[in-house]
Order: sequence, then structure tokens, then C-alpha cells
Amino acid sequence: MSKPGLPQGTRDFSAAVVRKRNHIFQTIRSVFELYGFQPLETPAMENLDTLMGKYGEEGDKLIFKILNNGLDNPAKHEQAKADFEKILEGKNNKGITERALRYDLTIPFARYVAMNYGQLTMPFKRYQLQPVWRADRPQKGRYREFYQCDADVVGSNSLLNEVELAHIYASVFEQLKVPVEIRINSRKILAALAEVCGGADKMTDITVAIDKLDKIGIDKVKEELSQRGLNNQQVTIIEKYLTISGNNEEKISQLATLLGNNESGKKGLEEIQYVLTNCDISNSPNHLVTDFTLARGLNYYTGIIFEVKALGVQMGSIGGGGRYDDLTGLFGVPNVPGVGISFGVDRIYDVMEDLQVFPDTVQIGTKVLFFNLGEAESKNAFHLLQTLRKNNIAAELFHEQSKFDKQFKYAEKKNIPYAVIIGSKEMEQGTCIVKDLTKGTQEEIAQSALLSYMGV
Amino acid sequence: MSKPGLPQGTRDFSAAVVRKRNHIFQTIRSVFELYGFQPLETPAMENLDTLMGKYGEEGDKLIFKILNNGLDNPAKHEQAKADFEKILEGKNNKGITERALRYDLTIPFARYVAMNYGQLTMPFKRYQLQPVWRADRPQKGRYREFYQCDADVVGSNSLLNEVELAHIYASVFEQLKVPVEIRINSRKILAALAEVCGGADKMTDITVAIDKLDKIGIDKVKEELSQRGLNNQQVTIIEKYLTISGNNEEKISQLATLLGNNESGKKGLEEIQYVLTNCDISNSPNHLVTDFTLARGLNYYTGIIFEVKALGVQMGSIGGGGRYDDLTGLFGVPNVPGVGISFGVDRIYDVMEDLQVFPDTVQIGTKVLFFNLGEAESKNAFHLLQTLRKNNIAAELFHEQSKFDKQFKYAEKKNIPYAVIIGSKEMEQGTCIVKDLTKGTQEEIAQSALLSYMGV
Repeated sequence: MSKPGLPQGTRDFSAAVVRKRNHIFQTIRSVFELYGFQPLETPAMENLDTLMGKYGEEGDKLIFKILNNGLDNPAKHEQAKADFEKILEGKNNKGITERALRYDLTIPFARYVAMNYGQLTMPFKRYQLQPVWRADRPQKGRYREFYQCDADVVGSNSLLNEVELAHIYASVFEQLKVPVEIRINSRKILAALAEVCGGADKMTDITVAIDKLDKIGIDKVKEELSQRGLNNQQVTIIEKYLTISGNNEEKISQLATLLGNNESGKKGLEEIQYVLTNCDISNSPNHLVTDFTLARGLNYYTGIIFEVKALGVQMGSIGGGGRYDDLTGLFGVPNVPGVGISFGVDRIYDVMEDLQVFPDTVQIGTKVLFFNLGEAESKNAFHLLQTLRKNNIAAELFHEQSKFDKQFKYAEKKNIPYAVIIGSKEMEQGTCIVKDLTKGTQEEIAQSALLSYMGV
Repeated sequence: MSKPGLPQGTRDFSAAVVRKRNHIFQTIRSVFELYGFQPLETPAMENLDTLMGKYGEEGDKLIFKILNNGLDNPAKHEQAKADFEKILEGKNNKGITERALRYDLTIPFARYVAMNYGQLTMPFKRYQLQPVWRADRPQKGRYREFYQCDADVVGSNSLLNEVELAHIYASVFEQLKVPVEIRINSRKILAALAEVCGGADKMTDITVAIDKLDKIGIDKVKEELSQRGLNNQQVTIIEKYLTISGNNEEKISQLATLLGNNESGKKGLEEIQYVLTNCDISNSPNHLVTDFTLARGLNYYTGIIFEVKALGVQMGSIGGGGRYDDLTGLFGVPNVPGVGISFGVDRIYDVMEDLQVFPDTVQIGTKVLFFNLGEAESKNAFHLLQTLRKNNIAAELFHEQSKFDKQFKYAEKKNIPYAVIIGSKEMEQGTCIVKDLTKGTQEEIAQSALLSYMGV
């Protein structure tokens, strides 16, 4: 007899949690649809080749690999042992593990686009809401199975996409009642910074160090920059860059001065200006804020980048994305530009719990419980029950005749707001007693009036 | 450069397919909710212990096991090699694979109930719509990743549950416009048959053989029964049993004669009578039909069993279920009765394609495409676009200025029914040209009238 448990870093979601999560998913999904994005679903398992080498050395180690079946075939034992040796050496081996679990939604999307390139309507706008798996060390807020919610456009260089994606962020978080700041920067500006301080080849080093600013502070960032081989003069320019402040206009003007005539810098600023000008969300509680310290770790970004921070709670970014070139190049289809954003559902959930902004209506499952007072009475109740259900009211008949107390407790535990009682007297008179369990009131009404009582 | 591909037996679902599948999921989910079932989600990965030994020897072999991470730690190599030897011998080994992918939704549900028994409101009614994975040989209609949709009630012996589950089948398939026959039998009747023909200990042999009737025909079933050690007299009784025919009443009466005073038989018939009497779905296009040849392979069923067959198409069962005792006993919580049903979504999808009963409305994503005629014009269009979206109409602005032809093609390929064109003249006059792409008509209207034109 095995004592039941769950693998570390995984979770069961009970009804109350599923309903809240679905509220988030449904809000995101409906906004994606309003903006013309179409759903895509890819399998949980991908070929090992598809995933390996796409997430850096650290990422590769966190991929869950699936053991091939049929290894107990004696004819293949010698080969299997040799293959296993390679696993022990830290190498990958298809002889043992041909498949692995999806690590994110971006690489499967790139794989899908590459496989179906000729058939897709360009620009191709897809959204995808599916779980991913990572063998990370579990800790608070970090799980081994979690959902990603991505929207991407490929096949278009137009900045209109960036404008729309910013609108999507604003609209989703407005509907979820989560006040946020949508931070925006451009990789072109980071490239310009590297060029201006004479270290164009140090772009990655600079980006990686800047990316840690929030976590380690400016002094440690300077230290890291020195360690990465930047000289004092270069570090000074970067420090100046990192301390740019004010409102959007002020920051842009300071940055323009710092970057001077650098071509990449001018282009980057122009693009940011375009998005700010065309993304009028000033009537929304959310703001589009330039943040030149924003770097986004992943190296594939090439243009505008986004990050979303919830206001009024302690929490890392709850969304992020940006423009990339040539993601499908990894799979043999080069020169397809793209831009996308992602929502961090687990963190959004925690923020919404903190702010207590989940609507109460999310939790309503069954609306009416019919009490079970015996065979004849419950037959009468069953008839009414089916009428309610046909009119889209979720309702139940208690499964067996038992004490009122027990039936009330069931309603209470399941958060059911109304109880309907039909005893022999009511049955004769064609009436029923309706108890409003929230208010603690009750009234006797004609059975034929029940539907309208329930608002149909 | 890896050439992209998908693992055997897995599928990408493009927008058109996702939308159709969601229509099925959403119909099932809403009916489950109307009947008071609550959602549950469990992780894709379970501990190996939770799954192994629950699906028979053949089932065990089809479970996808996940390779432990960190096997490249040299200190553990000797142990890992020893562990791997066991895998090669066909044994399971947690040293190499602690986790495995969910094989069905029933065992994770039983595990969940056992883990949370004290906290659950009984009877506990849950539904679950999630993918499962099996290392089956892929073939037409059989995949390695597929969805299951289950509803179960545990903690209740009441036959009311069976009545409700039959109603759920009828209601879902009525809404999906799939005519079906809901077949019903009882394991108690099969037990009675075994007793009556003097082979109570042969109950499993009889069930397994009968289960193949559809596939292999009566003669082969008789052959198999003989091979399994039943004598001629026993086989004759079973043949008589299998050839019972007529409407529900006629079949019940013939069966009552055959089973005589057998206690289990009387009980089984009584229960079937109860469900037939109380499940009045005669006004539905679907029928509840007694089928005493129905056996359902899985051994854990103990009472009423169901199977759903689509009418008018060649297809195996598209749903099934039944009553079981003591499923959670596997995880240390004995004596919890339960009953449940399952929907086979992939097969339902195929049947609906065959019958062409997917509603056209399922496919509508974007409703309006605004043409892009330049910077100023598209600014005007963008304003209108956002007004439509705020009123829940999915709309897009073509991403860049380009030839009409290209923009029309985009609308056509994405199945967008309306194009709105705003050129400099229209912009001046505050009008727009609306093209109904389905009808091939067009008219010029005030921009302020667009919302009402679109039915808001």
C-alpha cells in the first residue's frame, strides 16, 4: 500500500483555486481574441532535439526528459547501457530519452511556425495558454509545473504590434483590477550604450549586469561590470545611464544627450517615442513607463522590450516580452521577425489574492440545493431541478434522505446560496419553501414561480 | 540545425481545431457544472509509486516515466548503473525515475481523495478535463497524448447519482447534436450470470470474453469461453444470455426468467429498473437502452455500468463509466463508494466532423479587419478599432500599409467577415466603407454608426 503524495514542486488545484485561475485565463484569452490572436496548442512532449541547446547550459539541465519505453528488450541491452553511460557523463542521448517535456511555449511555437511556414497566414498572430515543466529547485512561488500565457506575432516588422501588445497588457490588468506599470525599453538603446562607452563587443556583459540592478543594486552592478572587463570610464557612462530619472519626456531627453548621434540609439528612441505616442492608455489606471535599466535576460530580444510590475505589492515582474528576429532560424526558416508578450499567471494569482480583487461571483458553482425528504418528495423536486438546469441554473438534489442539519451543512460547505424544501404538504399544494442561506430568510412560493424567483 | 518534427502519436492543434475542441470541452464543462460537479486539476507528473500496479501489467508498460535530473553527479554513478540494470530487467526504479506522466484521471483522483479525505464535502462531486499520456503504438484515432473528461461522485451509494450521470450524457450529446444510445448494464447481473451457470469463480473470464463480443462475434466468444474452461452447458447459458433481445421491458423480462431467484441478479435488475424509471429522457433524441452484453473491461466496476454509442456512424464507444467500490482503498482510505463517467473527446470530435454538426459560429475569431491606408488613416482607424474592442467585438488593423489585394487576402484567409476601409476622403467626412465579405456587398456609413452596424 503506497502512502499517497505529490511530486515536489507540483500542485493539485481544488475547485476554488481552479475557478480563480480560470478567471485569469479567461480574461487573458478574451483580450487576446479581441486583438485578433488565434489559439494554438502544442503537445506536452517534444523531441529532445527540438528543446536541447535552446535555453543555455543551465536551462538544458532543467529539462525533464522522458525515458524511452521498451528498454527491457534484451537484444538492446548492450546499446542501452552504452547510451546510459552518456547520460551519466551529462550528455543527451536519444537511445534512452527521445522525448522531453516542454520547457516554455516559445520554442514549441518557433518549431510549429517553421514546420507550417508555407500554410500560415502572415502576419501570424497566435496565443497559447499551456503548462510547462522545469526541474528547478522548488521554493515559494516557484513550481516544477506552471502555466505560461503567451501572445506572439511573427512575420511583421510593424511597430503597430508593439502598440497593440502594450494595449493588451493595459486591458487585461484593468479587467483583473491589478494596477500595474508597463515598463518599456529597447535593446537598440542598450546596444547604443555599449557602443557609446566604446565596448560594443561587451553588449552581453552589460545587459547581464544591468539585468541584476533590481536585485543587487547599483554598486554591485558596477563591481560586476569591472569584473567583466569594463574600465572606469565605461562604468561611469553606464552609471550615468542607470541613474537617468524623471517622467518619460525627461528621461528620453537625458538619454538623447547621453547617446548623442549614435544611430542605434536614435532608432531605439524613435521606436519608443512611436509606441508612447500611439499607445494612448492615459485613461486607463495603468501606465506605460520608459525604464532604460530594463534589460530582460534572454538574448534573443533585438528591439522594444516590455516588463510589467504590479503596483502596491512586493512581487517580481508579472509579465514580459519583446521583439526578436529570426527565432525560427533555429529550425531552418530564417528571417522571420516577431514580437510577443507573456503573462505570469502564478504571480498574477498571488498579487490578486494580496489585493483581494477576485470577484465573489467567480466562486459560485451550484446555486440551488433541493433537500431530499424521501422518495415521492424527491421525485417532485427532481422535476423542478431539471427545469432549473434547462434554464442554465446549476442545481443539485441532495443524494439521499437525511436530517436537515446534514443537508444544510452540505449547502454551506459548497457555498450554495439557496435551499429549496419540498415536503409532503408543499407537494400537495404545489409550493416549495425557498431559503436564502446568505440572508437567513425564507418564503413559500408556488413551484411554478421558482424560475422567476431565481431570476430567469 | 535540427529539422523540426513532432514525437510520434502527438499533435499540434491549430486555431480551427482548438476552437472545435473547445466547443466540446465547454459543452461538457457547463453540463457538469449545472449538475453540481466542481473542477479539479492534478499535475501531469505523479510519483511513480502512485501509478505503478494500477493498470495491470500491460498498462504499466505504457506509462511514460520521467528520467531523474542530476544523474551526471559522479558520486552517484555506481548506484545509477545498478538502478539502470533494474530498468533493463523490466522493473521499476525510483533511483532513475521517481516520476511518471498521468495515465488516466481516475488514479490521480483517487490519490487526491485519499490525501484530502477529511477536508472534502461528501458526497464529493468532481469533474476533470485534462490530457493523459500512454506509450501505445500510435495508429488512426489512437494518440500518445489525449484528453480525458471525467465526472465522478464519491461517498454516496445513492442510485440518484446514476440517474444524474445518464442525464448528463443525454444533455451533453443533445447539445452537441450527436444522436446516441446510452447503454446500461450492471456488474451485478454479470455476477449473477456467472453464479447461475455455476461458475461464480469464472466471473472475470466471462466478463473479459463478453467484452469482446462487438469485435469478434458470438462464435469466437463461445470459443474463448471454452478455452477459459467453461463447459458446454455453461456456454449455452451464456449464449442464451447474449442473445436476449427486444425493447427494455422485453429484455428485462427474458433476463429475469434466465436468472431466476439469484439474489445478485434481482438486485441488479432492480437497480436498472430504478434508473430507467427515474431517468425520463424520452423527450430527448437520445435513448437509454439496456444492453446485457455490455461488460466494460476494467475490473473495478461493481454496479451499474454505462457505455455511449453514436448512432449513424462507425465508431467505438464515445463514453463509458460505472459504479465502483473502494477505489481509494489503493491509497489507504477504504470503503469509499463511487460512480463516474467519462467522455472520449477525440472520438466525439471525429463523430462530429463526420456528421458535420460543428456550428459555424465556433470558427469566428476576428469579426472586423480595418484596412491600413497610411499613417493618418490608420490612426483614425485605430480609434474606431479600440471602440469595437471595448464593446467586445474582435477586430484588427492590418499591420502595415499595403495593396488592397493583400489586405483582402488576409481577411479571407482568417475568415474575417467584415472589412472597414477609411481613406482620406472618408476620414474627412467622418465615414467609413464597410464591406460584407460574405455577401460581397458594401456601404458607406458614418463612423459613429459602425458600432450599431455591428449589432452593439
